[in-house]
Amino acid sequence: MSDSTTTLAELRELVRRFVAERDWEQFHTPKNLSMSLAIEAAELMEHFQWIDVAESRRAGDDPAKLAAIRDEIADVLCYTLALANELKLDLSDAVRDKMVKNAAKYPVARSRGRYDPPGES
Amino acid sequence: MSDSTTTLAELRELVRRFVAERDWEQFHTPKNLSMSLAIEAAELMEHFQWIDVAESRRAGDDPAKLAAIRDEIADVLCYTLALANELKLDLSDAVRDKMVKNAAKYPVARSRGRYDPPGES
Amino acid sequence: MSDSTTTLAELRELVRRFVAERDWEQFHTPKNLSMSLAIEAAELMEHFQWIDVAESRRAGDDPAKLAAIRDEIADVLCYTLALANELKLDLSDAVRDKMVKNAAKYPVARSRGRYDPPGES
Amino acid sequence: MSDSTTTLAELRELVRRFVAERDWEQFHTPKNLSMSLAIEAAELMEHFQWIDVAESRRAGDDPAKLAAIRDEIADVLCYTLALANELKLDLSDAVRDKMVKNAAKYPVARSRGRYDPPGES
Repeated sequence: MSDSTTTLAELRELVRRFVAERDWEQFHTPKNLSMSLAIEAAELMEHFQWIDVAESRRAGDDPAKLAAIRDEIADVLCYTLALANELKLDLSDAVRDKMVKNAAKYPVARSRGRYDPPGES
Repeated sequence: MSDSTTTLAELRELVRRFVAERDWEQFHTPKNLSMSLAIEAAELMEHFQWIDVAESRRAGDDPAKLAAIRDEIADVLCYTLALANELKLDLSDAVRDKMVKNAAKYPVARSRGRYDPPGES
Repeated sequence: MSDSTTTLAELRELVRRFVAERDWEQFHTPKNLSMSLAIEAAELMEHFQWIDVAESRRAGDDPAKLAAIRDEIADVLCYTLALANELKLDLSDAVRDKMVKNAAKYPVARSRGRYDPPGES
Repeated sequence: MSDSTTTLAELRELVRRFVAERDWEQFHTPKNLSMSLAIEAAELMEHFQWIDVAESRRAGDDPAKLAAIRDEIADVLCYTLALANELKLDLSDAVRDKMVKNAAKYPVARSRGRYDPPGES
């Protein structure tokens, strides 16, 4: 798996260069990028809109569908990287710090096999 | 920057373990995770909802605000990693392949300094 | 049901006055309002994030949950009305025109009991 | 304006019949409909993704663009009506009740000309 050898910084650089070559930094404000992220997340959701949650597990069985889903996930990740570039945020540290918070919020003993009901989180 | 030495696989493993410890794989269907992604993207947008695009560039100047934004971006990335885990997708390859498509769709010569108007993409 | 006697214009006026009294027209640009709509839609989704589609049908059985869902739906509608106010669009005509298009796109004979697979619409 | 004479119930009935004719009630679970709402809200956002908030005010000047925006707003409203049908919620009362809450949360004296900073609401 390429993910085993690819660093976050390498992907960030890929996106940075793509944006710079097109002189698109002017459009890549945090406000616009947050919209882009939400738009791509919605396009991803479209693939699961009318099917059951169990059926969505089998989305990967159809190669054409999986390829389309993969493209949408890539779009989401690209905009996440672009936003990190713009705000100069280290994503690895951000994820690690957030996982520590999440571990405190959802202790294994209490959260095992259950999610908190909405509204209580 | 930690992103320079952290691989995608390391972050994926962090998320995988967190989910497994809580026996949450049962909730982590692609359908549910795509909703989670969209929800977190919306929480990120909230920080930029009422401000101008130019003002959003300065969001990073306020440490408290930047910390809150950083948490939301981490959430988005965590769910992206969780979805990749569930669908067994290599994110680095997905991003690289998508960037090739994007480069063909937005050639530098035609796209420099301008986005295609909505509806034509 | 109050919906039987309430016109769209009455609800629009309610929202218009609320916004005007607070001098919030300055924030109510179409761009910002479209973000607000997406944010409220995401807050609505949160109530259904981790449950099955069948279980979501029973969301109305719990009065507290239904009240929370009702508030989020109201938020979505309020921003829809605010956007229509800002763009001076007649919502009833917009819905009627869209339903005619939808009827052409999804003829009863072909669409009965099935949705088009994503990507083909 | 047609909104002056059209009741919410009339539009709800239009949507209800459209769904019933296609035997689509089976897909119209609250979970799925909340996703649809978010997806349509995102499609609406696309029209404002790369432009400035001030520029977004002029979106209505271009008839073709306005027609496309109008269609997306209609989609958002249709799904809102479909969700109200499914959950048997009175939308007019929901909006009125929410506006009372909003008026308490944002008193005119304190909120005039300013939004609460994100995170404090």
